[in-house]
Amino acid sequence: VSVDPAPQDEPPIRAVPVRTRRARGEAGARRLVYDAASLLAVAVGEFNTRGYDATSMEDLSRAAGITKSSFYHHVSGKEDLLRAALQRALDGLFAILEERHAVAGRPVDRLRYIVRRQVEVLQSELPYVTLLLRVRGNTDTERWALDRRRAFDAAVGELVRDAVAAGEMRADVDPAVAARLLSGTVNSVAEWYRPGRPDGAALPEDVVRSVFEGLVPRT
Amino acid sequence: VSVDPAPQDEPPIRAVPVRTRRARGEAGARRLVYDAASLLAVAVGEFNTRGYDATSMEDLSRAAGITKSSFYHHVSGKEDLLRAALQRALDGLFAILEERHAVAGRPVDRLRYIVRRQVEVLQSELPYVTLLLRVRGNTDTERWALDRRRAFDAAVGELVRDAVAAGEMRADVDPAVAARLLSGTVNSVAEWYRPGRPDGAALPEDVVRSVFEGLVPRT
Repeated sequence: VSVDPAPQDEPPIRAVPVRTRRARGEAGARRLVYDAASLLAVAVGEFNTRGYDATSMEDLSRAAGITKSSFYHHVSGKEDLLRAALQRALDGLFAILEERHAVAGRPVDRLRYIVRRQVEVLQSELPYVTLLLRVRGNTDTERWALDRRRAFDAAVGELVRDAVAAGEMRADVDPAVAARLLSGTVNSVAEWYRPGRPDGAALPEDVVRSVFEGLVPRT
Repeated sequence: VSVDPAPQDEPPIRAVPVRTRRARGEAGARRLVYDAASLLAVAVGEFNTRGYDATSMEDLSRAAGITKSSFYHHVSGKEDLLRAALQRALDGLFAILEERHAVAGRPVDRLRYIVRRQVEVLQSELPYVTLLLRVRGNTDTERWALDRRRAFDAAVGELVRDAVAAGEMRADVDPAVAARLLSGTVNSVAEWYRPGRPDGAALPEDVVRSVFEGLVPRT
């Protein structure tokens, strides 16, 4: 699997000392702590709920419970937050391709491993991956993320071609179509999976089994 | 397969006589003809490109090449257009469930038939199905469409359970998960399929084969 290294960008959110703020009307009773990571989590939640385009800095600061001006102390604009969130999802996915079982072995076994790990990353980084999957390419940041997604899919597509060439995957389905269906199936999990579902632990293996062995039992 | 009948709503777009308008600056040379169906097609294109929330009546009338006031002669607002577009996608999908091979035969064969036909409807009604799949539930119309999608998925889910109970589908994947993966795989086609692709004709069968037989050859 050959993949371009992720660009070494400036981190889009400045590392800031943890800031505290007294909750309104409860003098000193409760402190709301916001650091870059929790601001990011709040922003991703808003983006996923309202859609990125429809989310204003006002919406974000309201959701975080801080003033717009303190929000601007942390980030220069909402695109910073979008980029940080997408970077997190992409880092999680690209790291899989470097893992031992993704780089060595029969192509089909490497694919099985990658699919299982993709589902695991989707489960653990659900809001970030969800945001990534909804990106449409309206801004430079979104176009960058789409390019990175395409690079990931191209790496998987290459493995599918290798597996088909080696007779490890069926040749009567166009390898390009097979690769798209494979990633489409994995990504569709983000549409309905929610943390804490009882079937969560079995899910990665269920997806692998369904995709590679099919839904009809082998006799 | 038991399905609630689609609600018999008023058609959201009034049937209007075809209206003509002279293109600006080309006195009488060319007539742009707009009827309800072509307005709908234009609107769906804008919704899919910009996102429904971000599309204004101004955007729609500009895309249609008519004034905002003539646009309002046809429809009372953009939600009318959204509803008509979603209804068209849903009608296409629900009609499948009434077809002969969807109602008679072994559950697994009925499922194979439904999956193949779903892909065909997705191909022929791509913009409408794409819009349906992106609906998030921000308005009454979107919530109605989500409910209808859920009813469709529930009908398919019931068939999956029947097929598993009959030993026609694998029991080592949770039937609820299998049903979601099945519909996720089919729906993912809307993300990349474009009319005119050379693999278009083979696609419905490729999807059926991948989903039911799996990507690894059976020996």
